[in-house]
Amino acid sequence: MRNFEFLSPTRIIFGKDTEKQVGEQTKNFSKHILLHYGGGSIKKSGLYDTVVQSLKAAGVSFTALGGVKPNPRVSLVRKGIEICREQNIDFILAVGGGSVIDSAKAIAAGVPYEGDVWDFFRPVAEPKEALPIGVVLTIPASGSEASKSCVITNEEGWYKRSMNFNILRPQFSILNPALAYTLPAYQTACGAADIMAHVMERYFTNEKHVDFTDRLCEATLKTIIYNGPTALKEPENYDAWAEIMWAGAIAHNDFLGTGRVPDGASHKIEHELSGIYDVAHGAGLTVVFPAWMRYVYKHNMARFEQFAVRVWEVDSYFDNPEKTILEGIQRMENFFLSLGLPVTMKGLDITDDRIEEMAAKATERGPVGNLVKLYKQDVYEILQSCRK
Amino acid sequence: MRNFEFLSPTRIIFGKDTEKQVGEQTKNFSKHILLHYGGGSIKKSGLYDTVVQSLKAAGVSFTALGGVKPNPRVSLVRKGIEICREQNIDFILAVGGGSVIDSAKAIAAGVPYEGDVWDFFRPVAEPKEALPIGVVLTIPASGSEASKSCVITNEEGWYKRSMNFNILRPQFSILNPALAYTLPAYQTACGAADIMAHVMERYFTNEKHVDFTDRLCEATLKTIIYNGPTALKEPENYDAWAEIMWAGAIAHNDFLGTGRVPDGASHKIEHELSGIYDVAHGAGLTVVFPAWMRYVYKHNMARFEQFAVRVWEVDSYFDNPEKTILEGIQRMENFFLSLGLPVTMKGLDITDDRIEEMAAKATERGPVGNLVKLYKQDVYEILQSCRK
Repeated sequence: MRNFEFLSPTRIIFGKDTEKQVGEQTKNFSKHILLHYGGGSIKKSGLYDTVVQSLKAAGVSFTALGGVKPNPRVSLVRKGIEICREQNIDFILAVGGGSVIDSAKAIAAGVPYEGDVWDFFRPVAEPKEALPIGVVLTIPASGSEASKSCVITNEEGWYKRSMNFNILRPQFSILNPALAYTLPAYQTACGAADIMAHVMERYFTNEKHVDFTDRLCEATLKTIIYNGPTALKEPENYDAWAEIMWAGAIAHNDFLGTGRVPDGASHKIEHELSGIYDVAHGAGLTVVFPAWMRYVYKHNMARFEQFAVRVWEVDSYFDNPEKTILEGIQRMENFFLSLGLPVTMKGLDITDDRIEEMAAKATERGPVGNLVKLYKQDVYEILQSCRK
Repeated sequence: MRNFEFLSPTRIIFGKDTEKQVGEQTKNFSKHILLHYGGGSIKKSGLYDTVVQSLKAAGVSFTALGGVKPNPRVSLVRKGIEICREQNIDFILAVGGGSVIDSAKAIAAGVPYEGDVWDFFRPVAEPKEALPIGVVLTIPASGSEASKSCVITNEEGWYKRSMNFNILRPQFSILNPALAYTLPAYQTACGAADIMAHVMERYFTNEKHVDFTDRLCEATLKTIIYNGPTALKEPENYDAWAEIMWAGAIAHNDFLGTGRVPDGASHKIEHELSGIYDVAHGAGLTVVFPAWMRYVYKHNMARFEQFAVRVWEVDSYFDNPEKTILEGIQRMENFFLSLGLPVTMKGLDITDDRIEEMAAKATERGPVGNLVKLYKQDVYEILQSCRK
């Protein structure tokens, strides 16, 4: 196990009707805030009104900035920064899923920074401070509600890039599983896949003696494997959503990665897919992850065998570990398919004529991944194997 | 799953040689502190000198207060409070195990309180504020390094009582697994048992739909079951200690109890044993817990069956769940015995003539436990069953 420092100070407020506490929580930080959200879904569902009422009751005024898109754009981030500066806003409330939270984080870091916010993503600068933010979560997926991560897409060149800093962690996050009832099935499935991918990025490490975090990762993956299908079949099953939502926050707050180095290659490769083709991140991941696994498993057979046996409950072929491993990967693919997710580029409805470009962009800052360092040719071959 | 609020803001600094960072961490809070510790072991091991050097190098002066005993006493807490008040000390550094940390927490809460500190434990008052504290951990056991708990013993009447408040959580905790190398075998075993007990208190709940935290609890228990014996056999096995130390901190920071109500009966019953007889808390727990399980399991067979199968890997007797359950409890007892721990009062070298008194004291503030409410007669019978 490696030395590590772990800090996760976000106050989690979890459960039924907790969104009604948003005003009380927010007023501890500011009396005039930016209320940041996405499309019209929170207006349709009534959540927007609930939040506005709670803010008003707590004496908190706000400027609303909606319009965050999936794969959130730096242009809107820049607009948010401008508004905050003009109005001396010092707190951002994100009401939505990972895209809205990430957009809020980027605004929060951009306001006190004199240069352009994209500097943090290129990266040629690091944020030294950030406005505090709060969250009302509507989609369990990104884990951004408790993480230090922020992923933004630049429309100039369709670069999708991330930054990771503790100062970006939300002050509080309100998680009411019932707010996920209205998610379209495809988004529910993509969220489950994203959560699993966050865990798997940490699980696949060459680090030795990480027994505790291995078991925690396996526990989290099994929670999604057992509860994801239930939430799909019964969209108003509170209990299933509660498991998914809590697991989703823990999957990416770094706890599961303590003492180990995450891999990260699949996320980086996928960012090229969703950056260029604007596909759902979770669906991009279910295409890339199995392909990545089949490309790299020979570098650490014991780990992939453990994954197959402990997570996918494969009855080990003791005399043929490779068979065990491939059975595990197959079960994972079957699971993704059962959720209605693609496992090939064809399933994503995208063509394959930009594979070379994606491989080049993914590796333009050096090789990706830690379990195995992957260079342009490796990424090219992984993407090629996703074509079928 | 119940609604919950979860906050665990302690900065964990984990790994080899991390105790050398204590001065740098401390100076963020204060330049004159109380350095609180136990017996002579940290002087023998050289840890005391390392801490003092690090504090000096960071420009932090200190007043030392050693002498904390296992089952820490309120008399020393009162002395610490006096010193802090006289010297305007506003930060306490605890170097040791759970007893030292708990003593530091009690001092921290007592300094700004105008009444007597025991008021918090009777309890007739709640601490509204507390001095910040930091920790250099030497014994993985209590989980106090990241918890809101504090357990103190009052020599007048030998009452062992606890308080639980978020303001008691340490600001930082330095966890170097190598600091546990010099622990006597019995203390190593007691620590492992204490960690397991913290998890089991949370695991045994009637709450439905707590799949995620169930699995996390099971992961944590298995980590101790697989690594505890290694640390006993190979006291300088860094990797085994690292697993135990990180699991020990998580076992009691409330994360594993999110969304559920912990039971707590075994801890409360054990506090009478160690309060009156001054036995090691972990050893008291291995006596009380199996007896408690056998007394209550019929109230929630499914949960005890899951415990047997998932934690102790019992091959389920599907047509006889009771057999599965009892086999699980037996394996747990065998495990405790294999660590050199007692599972009967006789094994603790204590007589049984004060069972009535212990049952009365444990329940004097009402019944104990949540899985099943236990009254004086129940506790009496559980303690009777520990006699053999």
